[in-house]
Amino acid sequence: MSSLEEGDPKLRGTRAPSRMQGQAARSTEESTHEAKKPFQQVIDVSTGDSHRAGMKPVSFVRQVLAACVYPELLDENNLPLDARQRAHKLLGACTGGSVGSYSATAYGIPYVCKSVAEFIMKRDGGVRSNPEDIIFAPGSTKTLLMVLHLMASGEGEHCTAVLTPMPCPHTLPMLLDMAGLILVPYQLMEDRGGAVDLEELHRALETTRGRCSPRAIYISNPGNPTGHVQDRKSIEDVIRFAATEGLVLLADEVYQDSVYGQGKEFLSYKRVLFEMGKEYSETVELISFHSLSSGCMGECGLRGGYMEAVNLDQAVLKYLRGLQASSSPPVFPQLALEVMVNPPKPEDPSYKTYSQEILHSLTTLSQNAHRACEFLNDLPGMKCQPAWGGVFIFPRMHLPHQMVEEAKVLGVKADVLYCQMLLEEEGVRLGAGCENGQEDPNYHIRLCVLAPPDTLEEMLARLQAFHLRLLERFP
Amino acid sequence: MSSLEEGDPKLRGTRAPSRMQGQAARSTEESTHEAKKPFQQVIDVSTGDSHRAGMKPVSFVRQVLAACVYPELLDENNLPLDARQRAHKLLGACTGGSVGSYSATAYGIPYVCKSVAEFIMKRDGGVRSNPEDIIFAPGSTKTLLMVLHLMASGEGEHCTAVLTPMPCPHTLPMLLDMAGLILVPYQLMEDRGGAVDLEELHRALETTRGRCSPRAIYISNPGNPTGHVQDRKSIEDVIRFAATEGLVLLADEVYQDSVYGQGKEFLSYKRVLFEMGKEYSETVELISFHSLSSGCMGECGLRGGYMEAVNLDQAVLKYLRGLQASSSPPVFPQLALEVMVNPPKPEDPSYKTYSQEILHSLTTLSQNAHRACEFLNDLPGMKCQPAWGGVFIFPRMHLPHQMVEEAKVLGVKADVLYCQMLLEEEGVRLGAGCENGQEDPNYHIRLCVLAPPDTLEEMLARLQAFHLRLLERFP
Repeated sequence: MSSLEEGDPKLRGTRAPSRMQGQAARSTEESTHEAKKPFQQVIDVSTGDSHRAGMKPVSFVRQVLAACVYPELLDENNLPLDARQRAHKLLGACTGGSVGSYSATAYGIPYVCKSVAEFIMKRDGGVRSNPEDIIFAPGSTKTLLMVLHLMASGEGEHCTAVLTPMPCPHTLPMLLDMAGLILVPYQLMEDRGGAVDLEELHRALETTRGRCSPRAIYISNPGNPTGHVQDRKSIEDVIRFAATEGLVLLADEVYQDSVYGQGKEFLSYKRVLFEMGKEYSETVELISFHSLSSGCMGECGLRGGYMEAVNLDQAVLKYLRGLQASSSPPVFPQLALEVMVNPPKPEDPSYKTYSQEILHSLTTLSQNAHRACEFLNDLPGMKCQPAWGGVFIFPRMHLPHQMVEEAKVLGVKADVLYCQMLLEEEGVRLGAGCENGQEDPNYHIRLCVLAPPDTLEEMLARLQAFHLRLLERFP
Repeated sequence: MSSLEEGDPKLRGTRAPSRMQGQAARSTEESTHEAKKPFQQVIDVSTGDSHRAGMKPVSFVRQVLAACVYPELLDENNLPLDARQRAHKLLGACTGGSVGSYSATAYGIPYVCKSVAEFIMKRDGGVRSNPEDIIFAPGSTKTLLMVLHLMASGEGEHCTAVLTPMPCPHTLPMLLDMAGLILVPYQLMEDRGGAVDLEELHRALETTRGRCSPRAIYISNPGNPTGHVQDRKSIEDVIRFAATEGLVLLADEVYQDSVYGQGKEFLSYKRVLFEMGKEYSETVELISFHSLSSGCMGECGLRGGYMEAVNLDQAVLKYLRGLQASSSPPVFPQLALEVMVNPPKPEDPSYKTYSQEILHSLTTLSQNAHRACEFLNDLPGMKCQPAWGGVFIFPRMHLPHQMVEEAKVLGVKADVLYCQMLLEEEGVRLGAGCENGQEDPNYHIRLCVLAPPDTLEEMLARLQAFHLRLLERFP
C-alpha cells in the first residue's frame, strides 16, 4: 500500500504531452489531491510494481548489492558467504573495482552480458547465445524506445508501422507515439484467454496496404495484461507469419519467470525459432526484452533491463550497442541483472532462502490470480478470463448505459471514469483498459495481482463495495 | 588504475556515429587490443572518473545506500547510527518504502527535490529555491540533453545555436550534435587561465547573423577542462550579456564542490543573478546543472544529477518535468543525491570521518593540480595554466612539425596521435584537446588530476619518458 501522498508515476500528469493517454492520466491523478477521504491508504495495483503493493524483495539480490555498494561488508558476517563472494566477483568486473566508476562499455559491463548469454543458453536448451548480442538499458521501456526510434522512418504510406496486440502493455501506445510509429492493432482472442489468432494477423496486415509500412510485430508473452501464455504451435505460427511478411519480431518476454498456469510453461521465441530450422533461425530478425522490474524480482526502482538481438544486421546492432554512449549506463542495475540471471545454486548457502522466496512469490501470484478471477466473475457485469502467467488480470466490464452517457458529458472514457470514482470513493487505483488500447464500448480494468494476499482481499472488498454501489446508482 | 581489459567508455568506438568525434574515439580505442605491452596497467586520467583512478568513495554515502538497499542493516551495528537513521528516513520517502518501487513522480522523489532546494538556498545565502524547479535526471549529460532537445528548432538561419566555450567539456560537442544544435564557439582566454572575455562573446555572437539563431550560452564554472573559477564581476558580465541578447544561461556548475585555488570561491550564477536585482532575477532564464559524478563525490557509475530551472516558462518547465515519464527515473541515484546535498552535521557521529574524507579529497586535488602543472611546465613544448577548481588541467603542447605531418598522412589529428602513441607505449590514457573543441594547431591534452598521488606520479613519469622520446624521434 502506498500513502495518499505518494502517487502512481505512470498516471501522474507530469509526462510529456501524449496524444494517446494524456487526458486519462491527468483525470485519474488529480482526484487524489482532495482532502478527507473515507479510507486510510490508497491501494495501487495499476502497475506491475509489486514492492509498492507490499511484496518483499529477493534477499540474495539485495545482499549482494549492499556489499557491492559498501565493500566493507565483504569482511563481516552480516551477509551470507555466497552473497559476499558474488559481490566480490561483481566488483572485480567493475572498472576500478567500484560501482562508482563508469561502465567499461556503453552497452553494458561485458561480464554481465556474458552471464546473461549463459542464462539464455541454459533456458533455451543449449541454443547458442552471443554476449555481443546482449544490450543493457536502464529499464526495458528505454530499451524498447531505442529500438523503436531506430525503426522510425518515412512519411505517409512509407511511415513505419508496428502490428500491436490489443490489449497491449499500457506503456506501449505512448512509446510508439513518442517514436513516431504507427500502431496497427491486432485483436487478441479474449474468449481464448488472449490467444494470438493467425487470421487476425493477416486481417490487421491487410489494413496497412497503401496506408503505412509495417516493419515489426510486437508480442507480449506471457501476456501483459491478458495473462495468456503462448504454446509452441502459436509461437511457430507467429514466427512463420513474420518470416513471410518480412517483419521484425519484438518479443516482450519480461514475465518469463512468472508462469503459473497448470501445465503451462514459458517457451522463448528464440528457442522456438532455432528449433524450426535454419530456414528461420538464420533469417528472422528477433529482439527479445527482459527486465529487472518484472515478476518475482519486481525491482522497478532500480531501472534495469536488457535485450537480445538475433539476426540483426551488424551495422544496426553496432548502432544499438552505441546508442547510450552519450551517457554511460548505470552500473548498479547491471549488477542486479547479473544476480537475477545467475541465482544461487543448490549447493550454495543462500539457495534455500532464495528458492523459498521465489516459490512464495509464484504461489502468491497463482493463488491471487485464481482468487481475484473467481471473485470478479461473481460481480454482476464483470467477466474475467483465467490468467496463466505475468502479473495482471484484465477483466471485461459491462458498464451501465447511463454511466457511459455521463462519462461522455464529462469528456472522459467510461472506464477512466470508473477508475477515477473507485479511487475517489475507495482509494483503490486500477488501470483503465483504454490505456491498454481497448476502445469503447469494450471496457476493461487492469489489476496487478502480485500483492500480499491480505492487500488483495482488502482491494477486492473495496472494489466490490464500489461496484455494487455503482450498479445501484445506475440501475 | 584500470586493467588493460577495461576501457574508457567515453573513448570506446561503440557510441552512435557522431560527426564530431567518431574518428578520434575509434583510433584511440583500437590501439589497446594488441598483445604484449611494456606496462602492467593502463592509467586512465582522460575523464573525471576518480574512482577508476583509485580514489575512495565517501563512506557516509555508501553506508546510507547499503542500508537503503538491504534494510536488514538498519538493525545492526555495522553502520554508524546517523547513516542508518538517514537510510530509514530516505526509505520513508520511497514509494512502498522500498528502492524497488518506481519513483513517486517522473521528475524525481519530492523529498529529494526539497532537500536539493534547501541545499541551494543555504549555498546561495538564502536566495529562495523552489523544489518544483528541481528536476532529477540519470546523469547531468542526460539532463542537458533533455534541455538541448527542447531548444532544438528551425532550419538554416532559424536553426537554434548555442554559444559554446572553447575549450568546452569533451562530451558537449557530441550532445549538441545529437540534439541538432549549432555550436557557435567563443574562445576562453588561455593566458588568463580560461577566463570568459566579454568582447569575445560579442564577436562570437556577431558570427551568427544570418547564419543561425543563438538561443543560449553554455558556461562551465568551475571550468571543465580549464580549471578556471569565475569571479563575481565575470559572472555579472555574462549575465548582462545574456539578458541583453535574450539568451538562456546554461550553467554547468558540476564542479562547485571542487574549488581549491588560493582565495577563490564558488559563486553560483543563480546567486549572482539574484543579487543583481529584479531587473535580472525576474527575467533571465537560467538552468544550472549539478551531478553525483563530479568532484569529491565521484559517483559516476550511479548516474545521477539534477538541474534547477529559474525563470523558465511554466509550460516549458512542466514539459521538462514530464520528459522522463516514459520511464520512471531510477531511485538509487536520487537517494545518493540527497546524501550529497545534505551531508552529516557537526553534531552527527559520521561528521568527523566525512569531513576528513572531503578534506583529503580536496587536498589531494589541490596538491596534484599544482604538482602536475609545475611538472608539465618543465617539459619542453608544454605550457600549463594553473587551475583553481574542477578536476582537470589542460596544458597546451607545441608538437614537432614532422609529427604533425605524420598525423596528416595517417588521417588523424596530431593531438589524437600523441594520445594514441602515449597509450600504446606507456599505458597512459589522456584526452586529446580536439575532443574539447580545440582545433589544429592549437594542440592540448586533458588530464584529470583527482587521483591518488602515487598514481599521479607514475602517470607523470610515464608521460615524461614518452614526451622526451617523442622529441628525440622528431627533433
